[in-house]
Amino acid sequence: VTVTAVALAGLPEIWPGADLAALVAGTGERIGDADVVVFAHKAVSKSEGRLRRLADVRPSERARALASDQGKDPRMVQIVLDETQEVLRAARGVLVCVTRHGFVCANAGVDASNAPEGMVVLLPADPDVSARRLRARLRGRLGAAPAVVVTDSFGRAWRRGQADVAIGCAGLRVLEDWRGRRDAQGRELRSTWIAVADEAAAAADLARRKDEHAPVVVVRGLDRHVTASDGPGAAALRRPADEDLFR
Amino acid sequence: VTVTAVALAGLPEIWPGADLAALVAGTGERIGDADVVVFAHKAVSKSEGRLRRLADVRPSERARALASDQGKDPRMVQIVLDETQEVLRAARGVLVCVTRHGFVCANAGVDASNAPEGMVVLLPADPDVSARRLRARLRGRLGAAPAVVVTDSFGRAWRRGQADVAIGCAGLRVLEDWRGRRDAQGRELRSTWIAVADEAAAAADLARRKDEHAPVVVVRGLDRHVTASDGPGAAALRRPADEDLFR
Repeated sequence: VTVTAVALAGLPEIWPGADLAALVAGTGERIGDADVVVFAHKAVSKSEGRLRRLADVRPSERARALASDQGKDPRMVQIVLDETQEVLRAARGVLVCVTRHGFVCANAGVDASNAPEGMVVLLPADPDVSARRLRARLRGRLGAAPAVVVTDSFGRAWRRGQADVAIGCAGLRVLEDWRGRRDAQGRELRSTWIAVADEAAAAADLARRKDEHAPVVVVRGLDRHVTASDGPGAAALRRPADEDLFR
Repeated sequence: VTVTAVALAGLPEIWPGADLAALVAGTGERIGDADVVVFAHKAVSKSEGRLRRLADVRPSERARALASDQGKDPRMVQIVLDETQEVLRAARGVLVCVTRHGFVCANAGVDASNAPEGMVVLLPADPDVSARRLRARLRGRLGAAPAVVVTDSFGRAWRRGQADVAIGCAGLRVLEDWRGRRDAQGRELRSTWIAVADEAAAAADLARRKDEHAPVVVVRGLDRHVTASDGPGAAALRRPADEDLFR
């Protein structure tokens, strides 16, 4: 198997209301049914208007206290809390949050970098819905229905650095399930539940230079994982709290 | 940027003493200085003889107790404990361990699948040393010094499924550091410490079919991350306990 990831060149800065599918089609890149189109969530969030203006925020007591403890802007902390169902840890200037969707990440994915002046970018309200909508629009523009993945860069427990993961998905098998299957000697396979959508997100990130604007990457060679139906989305990658040993 | 990952075909089953560099060279794949050769750790461990025979193991009291609680073979648990500096969690039939190297993973990476009959495969004793040795041997065989990554499939806190990560590395910048750099508006970049070696491991895994024997994948397009010196290795990816909020 050969897998390739190519960043699309020539996309403009994304603003609220931008038609991402039209912009992708406009690059002229040939995209087929077996391809996976990977969008950095920031472009998706901006196109959906998922932005907040710091000047409009009135921080609560809790936000002020957390901000003071962590050396952060209380308005920023309030926005993070608005996106959060539970703060797992607050330390070293980072709030590790369970987002309203159920993802665990720093600052609930709220990000000031590369946002319009005085604003911050939120995660999409429902990244799986965003992925399905993008897939439908790409189908309209391209006459092909590639899979769509929406990504963010998440830190990890126990390991330094961030890696891109899937927060939204349509048309890609997010988990490849070999559990219960056996090896040639009849022993159960160990690495048996593969987070394909997260690995695709990571592969796509490698095709981006961080100092270039490259929010969209096309990944090819994953034909065996691309499905006609949109499927359960990246929601399937969230480990429910009652299965999780690290909350 | 375009990144490609291609699994090498035609490699035999690996046994203790196998010369992996010679086997890779023997496939005829053209491999250059800017390429990254990604080895599934199991092939590396087997070639290094990092195997143990269950029948030789006498489980301790602690191993018997843990095995009984978790429904596991006490001899297998003893081998896991022998590879472990700390058990973080024991639940649902899994021991989440800090390995002797300092990696956090299920069962300290000890794996019975695809092992010779009655044996289990351990992680390499020092996967960074393994990577450096493989790189040196590849240089001798190929007349080029590609980077080398040794991988394993790790489960993750908070997310379902496993993704491949780097446990050993030579000649690849494992972390790309943008911390402190600023975006176009002068705000600090958030996703600023990118686990390149883990993303390369994930990309390589996508190029493998799980029902095929494909322990070696060549990743191309990461030229900007490949270094002449071997560098700090995957050790740099381990988050020290005192920086870790989830131990």
